[in-house]
Amino acid sequence: MKFKIALLSGDGIGPEVTEQAVKALHAIGDLHGHTFEFEEAPVGALAIEQTGNPLPDATLEVCKNSDAVLFGAIGDPKYDNNPDAKVRPEQGLLKLRKELGLYTNIRPVKAYPTLIDKSPLKKDIIEGTDMVIYRELTGGIYFGEKKLSEDGTVASDLCEYSEAEIERIAHLAFKAARARKKKVTLVDKANVLESSRLWRRVVTTISKSYEDIDLDFLFVDNAAMQMILNPSQFDVILTENMFGDIISDEGSVIGGSIGLLASASVGDKSAMFEPIHGSYPQATGKDIANPIASILSAAMLLTHLGLHEEAGVVNKAVERALEKQIVTSDLYKESTYGTKSVGDYIAHAIVNID
Amino acid sequence: MKFKIALLSGDGIGPEVTEQAVKALHAIGDLHGHTFEFEEAPVGALAIEQTGNPLPDATLEVCKNSDAVLFGAIGDPKYDNNPDAKVRPEQGLLKLRKELGLYTNIRPVKAYPTLIDKSPLKKDIIEGTDMVIYRELTGGIYFGEKKLSEDGTVASDLCEYSEAEIERIAHLAFKAARARKKKVTLVDKANVLESSRLWRRVVTTISKSYEDIDLDFLFVDNAAMQMILNPSQFDVILTENMFGDIISDEGSVIGGSIGLLASASVGDKSAMFEPIHGSYPQATGKDIANPIASILSAAMLLTHLGLHEEAGVVNKAVERALEKQIVTSDLYKESTYGTKSVGDYIAHAIVNID
Ligand SMILES: [Mg+2]
Ligand SMILES: [Mg+2]
Repeated sequence: MKFKIALLSGDGIGPEVTEQAVKALHAIGDLHGHTFEFEEAPVGALAIEQTGNPLPDATLEVCKNSDAVLFGAIGDPKYDNNPDAKVRPEQGLLKLRKELGLYTNIRPVKAYPTLIDKSPLKKDIIEGTDMVIYRELTGGIYFGEKKLSEDGTVASDLCEYSEAEIERIAHLAFKAARARKKKVTLVDKANVLESSRLWRRVVTTISKSYEDIDLDFLFVDNAAMQMILNPSQFDVILTENMFGDIISDEGSVIGGSIGLLASASVGDKSAMFEPIHGSYPQATGKDIANPIASILSAAMLLTHLGLHEEAGVVNKAVERALEKQIVTSDLYKESTYGTKSVGDYIAHAIVNID
Repeated sequence: MKFKIALLSGDGIGPEVTEQAVKALHAIGDLHGHTFEFEEAPVGALAIEQTGNPLPDATLEVCKNSDAVLFGAIGDPKYDNNPDAKVRPEQGLLKLRKELGLYTNIRPVKAYPTLIDKSPLKKDIIEGTDMVIYRELTGGIYFGEKKLSEDGTVASDLCEYSEAEIERIAHLAFKAARARKKKVTLVDKANVLESSRLWRRVVTTISKSYEDIDLDFLFVDNAAMQMILNPSQFDVILTENMFGDIISDEGSVIGGSIGLLASASVGDKSAMFEPIHGSYPQATGKDIANPIASILSAAMLLTHLGLHEEAGVVNKAVERALEKQIVTSDLYKESTYGTKSVGDYIAHAIVNID
């Protein structure tokens, strides 16, 4: 098959890590007879320099006309250290999510056996962890009405959800569970919040169309504990925007390396795939950045396109690199492999996987 | 000095663990020439049985006329398993907090050297952790306006804070830092929420009257990560109600034993001290419940009464019991010590501390 991929590699180490993900996709294409046609477009600090806009209209058009977006990273210290900057690279990402209607953020958390000693958790606790967090991304208190009284002494934020907002992400979570361990855990605070009670009602109703999937419930404060005490109990976690922000960031550190974590942001018409790490400007151009998160985001992209077998091959190739310690020095101090050689190894492993 | 203490030992293991805390307070009284006069009053399931009300007016009066409230635990499976129960033991606790105006919840989290192997975190990460979390307890989204649209398809919760609500707890947190490592970390989400921006402004202004205290800021999602990656960086954490619920529950598990964790709920006129564990009905009357959390809550009570040296003696006696493994079997499997003998040892250690 033929696929059009928008390539928004962005700032800092973005271009060099996405380059490795592109290599992996080409390798898969060669192996399985697909063609991935990449169209590059500027975003972030690069786009501000070229056009004054962190998300130029032309870039948005490229994304809308693609089957998926492969995203690198965004952010430049030039803007971070300038409080008067009127446009910021990060605005490009927020606008992109909004314009493409990406209402679900998906974050896998997996404990790789070869990296278990890097986890802050003890081995017997982190072992076997393999979950994916479905976080609602465009509603809730982050986007609700904000108020500040005229005298500035009272401030408020509104957390609002509609049935429709909950339904669409819930279906995605149940479908994901079907291809996994068949369990969905709804994280909410239904003993206190009206919006959480709506989540619970809607998700319970939807669960009846997925009879093969177990649904259970966890209050968010308890979930924050369980993530540390027993993370391997989870399969698919489904939750609202702010709870998802907190729980998925907590989850991101238990595996031991942020350089391995990929994410997807999905809507009805578009989907974007990116590492969760930032643009890491100090490492730019030094061939030391870990490309694995970007390569794993390419695997998520394959899954999204329905190419499940192909995604499995990429994941396997990454696991082989980890096993053989063909990794950058953030994962294995003595390693002399750089960004490119790790990318080359994984592309090679994809073609030669058994 | 002479102090009046309301003794609300409650349900389940509440009475047997508070009995050990009372012993510790009497021992301190003997040693330092104080008199603690205890007045018992029913609360929770016990109070429902006696009066039909989980917080009888007479109990509330006893609390209001005391220098502090020593609280045990609340809850009975009889009510948990009956969805039709109109009154529940837990309502007694919520009403008590409200009636006494207890707007600040205080939770210490400490890694005891002898218990480090019980932590889910690796030794080098948990070692040296000694923080206290100041959580706003009567405002924010848990108490804000709740709405459900007439057709039941849209639900919302309002998170609102006023300057005055923030100021009073902020002063408590800065004062606590003064007697500790002189650092306050405000946990918020000021990059997104208007209410968080108010917290940041008010706390920053107040910090100017505490020039000896360092103030820093952490977004709540980052705080959830830092609690796992580097908990020993924290001294006093200050935060709003819901963030405090999540972060303090997350913090409660990193030390390795919930049987050691005490808490205080403080207002302008009253203060209440209790273990964070529940009524643990299966253990009732078996002399197996760990009394240390209740004894440590008595130490917090002493601090609140201005008896800092005395509180230090209780803490030291507890540490000695932990070192000598004079503990219940939840902490040390082979132990044959029961609730009472641990309490006796600690009371004895208080009187004989060097
Ligand atoms: Mg976050
Ligand atoms: Mg809680």
